[in-house]
Amino acid sequence: MKITRLDACDSVPITMEGVMGAVKQVPIGQTDDSPNFSVRVFTLKPGGHTPHHNHDSEHVNYIIEGSGELLDGDKPRQIKKGDFILVKPQERHQYRNTGDTPLVFICAVPKEYE
Amino acid sequence: MKITRLDACDSVPITMEGVMGAVKQVPIGQTDDSPNFSVRVFTLKPGGHTPHHNHDSEHVNYIIEGSGELLDGDKPRQIKKGDFILVKPQERHQYRNTGDTPLVFICAVPKEYE
Repeated sequence: MKITRLDACDSVPITMEGVMGAVKQVPIGQTDDSPNFSVRVFTLKPGGHTPHHNHDSEHVNYIIEGSGELLDGDKPRQIKKGDFILVKPQERHQYRNTGDTPLVFICAVPKEYE
Repeated sequence: MKITRLDACDSVPITMEGVMGAVKQVPIGQTDDSPNFSVRVFTLKPGGHTPHHNHDSEHVNYIIEGSGELLDGDKPRQIKKGDFILVKPQERHQYRNTGDTPLVFICAVPKEYE
């Protein structure tokens, strides 16, 4: 059994193409011998964004802090603290922090995609 | 792509043996055609608890609100808003709300265990 908090997890800046102002933490993942899931947390600075992309894995998200937009294909949808999101495999998407405070969200994936 | 919030999800009281003062919501699950995960949210009233049990599935948790104890086997560990928890398969556990406000937590599982 593991109990942890974000302030105990390493923060790694994301250098992937199409990303701006984003760091990644992994509270629960492969190094914890998690059977199925990795729980990543992304923090986007105001103006920051993830890539506008699609992939084989789904995302299961929960917005911990802040607000912004999620591109559903090319259509922006508003997201904010307390939202739960399922992005299905191959759905093109992008998270954008359009607010003036950090946008912090859980992004759980099958551990192969950690 | 699904975006939802707890106030849009049905709340179902849990009548399972060993449970007190608990309701369940499922923001993301089998009816959403989720490929792998179901995201359940449990709310325990002050004094409420889940069963003291173990099972084949892991739990991946995030504490949204409140505080309490998580029995790790028979040992109580303190939990509070912002904690991430991995309960591995067959680890005996029980969530207890020992605070005076609701204890609200995400409990993600493989969808077969929804």
